Amino acid sequence: MKLARLGPPGAEQPVLVDGDRTYALAGIVDDIDGAFFENGGIEQVRRALADGDLPLLERAESLRIGPPIARPSAVICIGMNYAAHAAESGAQPPEVPIIFLKTPNTVVGPYDEVTIPRGSTQTDWEVELGVVIGRRASYLSSPEAALEHVAGYVAANDLSERQFQLQESGGQWSKGKCAPGFNPLGPWLATADEVDHGNLALRSWVNGEPRQDSSTADMIFDVGFVIHHLSQYLTLEPGDLVLTGTPQGVALSGRFPYLRPEDVVEVEIDGLGRQRQVMRAFQDAEVLAHG
Amino acid sequence: MKLARLGPPGAEQPVLVDGDRTYALAGIVDDIDGAFFENGGIEQVRRALADGDLPLLERAESLRIGPPIARPSAVICIGMNYAAHAAESGAQPPEVPIIFLKTPNTVVGPYDEVTIPRGSTQTDWEVELGVVIGRRASYLSSPEAALEHVAGYVAANDLSERQFQLQESGGQWSKGKCAPGFNPLGPWLATADEVDHGNLALRSWVNGEPRQDSSTADMIFDVGFVIHHLSQYLTLEPGDLVLTGTPQGVALSGRFPYLRPEDVVEVEIDGLGRQRQVMRAFQDAEVLAHG
Repeated sequence: MKLARLGPPGAEQPVLVDGDRTYALAGIVDDIDGAFFENGGIEQVRRALADGDLPLLERAESLRIGPPIARPSAVICIGMNYAAHAAESGAQPPEVPIIFLKTPNTVVGPYDEVTIPRGSTQTDWEVELGVVIGRRASYLSSPEAALEHVAGYVAANDLSERQFQLQESGGQWSKGKCAPGFNPLGPWLATADEVDHGNLALRSWVNGEPRQDSSTADMIFDVGFVIHHLSQYLTLEPGDLVLTGTPQGVALSGRFPYLRPEDVVEVEIDGLGRQRQVMRAFQDAEVLAHG
Repeated sequence: MKLARLGPPGAEQPVLVDGDRTYALAGIVDDIDGAFFENGGIEQVRRALADGDLPLLERAESLRIGPPIARPSAVICIGMNYAAHAAESGAQPPEVPIIFLKTPNTVVGPYDEVTIPRGSTQTDWEVELGVVIGRRASYLSSPEAALEHVAGYVAANDLSERQFQLQESGGQWSKGKCAPGFNPLGPWLATADEVDHGNLALRSWVNGEPRQDSSTADMIFDVGFVIHHLSQYLTLEPGDLVLTGTPQGVALSGRFPYLRPEDVVEVEIDGLGRQRQVMRAFQDAEVLAHG
């Protein structure tokens, strides 16, 4: 099944996407969030679909596509999880998963415009397989058991500002990972049963030119390993998001220019859909709106 | 004013503490969370107190003291923000604030027992001044303006596992900062108007023996600087928690042993109260409960 959330930011409604049909879920679930996963929401939706109980949502195509999950309690990221990306970043492949966090308020829709942060000269793209947690995970017994805690998968762009991440940070990466809009997600969540997570092509483009083109088969630490490993150090909550790292082909490599206003970034993962973001210049007026 | 939350984990009720009186706030606000701060909750409570509209909560002393704020959307920490602590950690004082994150589910009450993580040999304490955000903060104009976005202050223990943080991490600290229970908070939130945040003594003890004993006057980057700086890189949400770094006197220095089961950790900050945690040995039965 493919789950999505449609509507204005902060007021998205949950839907089920089945081919060219979109079914409204608002009558049976509140949102696609931690409570949804914890309380068997996926099975509830599956039954309602099988029973013919879901109403079609008319004119769904006129609605904005939001992130397919509500704001998670945590966004946990794995760094340097593809050997060729570690090399292009000037690092050795890690011997254990490296983790850092993004603030959960970075999560936005897959087609939302993204503002290049004030003062940024090194905004970079990163296509990543996102794992959505279905059941609380703490001290899991094995990578195989870890997979039972996965609700589904999403496409993600782990946008990064390299000057902030590497030069102004004292070496801790989160400073370059948390700017507003830096985590486009979606367009949909595919439930775990229909995703071959270890064998997905993932690609990115800037202005239509190819950038990343790899496969999750190239991960150093696969999904089960990552979730099991994380659970030894922290507790993953239902609805949490784990980003599993990006393959080679980012601007940090020096092979491509960083993002500039009006650039169009696209990321795509097999079975998880394609995103498209137009990059915007920072406008000082935004300071007045927020500050 | 001093705000607190009393009751079992996940079912705390908001209260106002005034000397030896405890007033129930449940009739006028839902919780002490982002919505509370964003919607003028502090002023609402202040008016209700002045008008004599708040009912006393009887037998408040029989209730568990929870963390004084609901789970934040983010917990953002400043590393190495006291020169002598940077030195004892083998580092130079930073030229800019170093940031890392804790998962928000680490937040617990100030007297809750804390389990030493499975396999841990280097669990360490860190007394820290916690800043609670009152208004959304993005691209703030100055450190002075930043202080207007602060709702209040709390005492925090930024518990840390040094082996996980420094040896098993690839250099990114969050892996040693996010174990369950690793963020005791409280006992109360003091509103910003009654806290001289730049001049607070902060101390810690283990089994009654002194460990840290410093002042927030020794911070390299003060509260206004930190909040202004953070807002250039990310958006702080109402109810978010910023931990401002710890002074010298932790086990990482080599001068004191790491925490062991049955050790008692206390941390205290002027005007923000004193915490006390008994450290527990990890029990494999917990795996069955969570895994």
